[in-house]
Amino acid sequence: MRKLKNSELKRKTVAAFKMAPKIPLILILADVRSLNNIGSIFRTADAFLIEKIFLCGITATPPHKDIYKTALGATDSVDWAYEERAEVIVKKLQSEGVRVLAIEQAEASLPLSDFRVDKDEKYCFILGNEVRGVPQELVDDCDGVIEIPQEGTKHSLNIAVATGVVLWDFYQKFKML
Amino acid sequence: MRKLKNSELKRKTVAAFKMAPKIPLILILADVRSLNNIGSIFRTADAFLIEKIFLCGITATPPHKDIYKTALGATDSVDWAYEERAEVIVKKLQSEGVRVLAIEQAEASLPLSDFRVDKDEKYCFILGNEVRGVPQELVDDCDGVIEIPQEGTKHSLNIAVATGVVLWDFYQKFKML
Repeated sequence: MRKLKNSELKRKTVAAFKMAPKIPLILILADVRSLNNIGSIFRTADAFLIEKIFLCGITATPPHKDIYKTALGATDSVDWAYEERAEVIVKKLQSEGVRVLAIEQAEASLPLSDFRVDKDEKYCFILGNEVRGVPQELVDDCDGVIEIPQEGTKHSLNIAVATGVVLWDFYQKFKML
Repeated sequence: MRKLKNSELKRKTVAAFKMAPKIPLILILADVRSLNNIGSIFRTADAFLIEKIFLCGITATPPHKDIYKTALGATDSVDWAYEERAEVIVKKLQSEGVRVLAIEQAEASLPLSDFRVDKDEKYCFILGNEVRGVPQELVDDCDGVIEIPQEGTKHSLNIAVATGVVLWDFYQKFKML
């Protein structure tokens, strides 16, 4: 099977991306340390038409050459904003009716396989720091916790990989509605 | 919801991992350049109980400190082997009845959303180089191509993220059989 050339990939222009209907999902990155991870998450958000990314706490913001290296320009297409305190965004989104869910390992969390997307709801996923995850106080503010089932020796996916998993999962479920 | 402590995560020991039934999926990494990506893929393979990883071509092998930094020990749990020529592994697996699929963007590729896991089959996914993807000659050797639908301006997920997406997708579909 012939591989497609870049010119055949039907890439959207940045202007077309801005106009395109998004999937009803917002991301909060709370204290993500690695610039590579941030850039990589922008690229994934671009692929799956994520509505917006909030960068919070120590999460660095574009423009930055090390974010650019992995984002490859996706910081121009995906809408984003910086807010130091993630809990401010959580409260604001909740007041607008958005369902805010932490991606974490917690008691009575919902396994990702059991998470159902409701077509009338809008969602926000919070991803946390590479080592400490989402702070407990922020988890407490959430409407629930989704956990990626992990069966190995580590139980600790890379944060950009975990984001890829939950974004693909959401995108696919939303498209099937 | 209370976050779980590391001691509550029911992590398998390396010995328990080796003994555990795996999901019927093998990975081939063909010319993956970044040590961070290789390590991160090991960690994902550990989480989803992947059977084996073949490292081919320029893909570096453990032990290496930069692989360790992102694999965090998953190179001890997940079975792996090096083979310079990926096509040798492809032919060998096919002769054993394994269905070998490239993860690529190609004419008449199967969108990941339409890919169905057959409980009587065993599978191998090939992931390629960060820039060039899976070589055309290796794609030609495959039994098919799976494509991750991407709707943005880039159409180029990070390789570790793409691996996370296809491994989660396979793991979830297999568990539902």
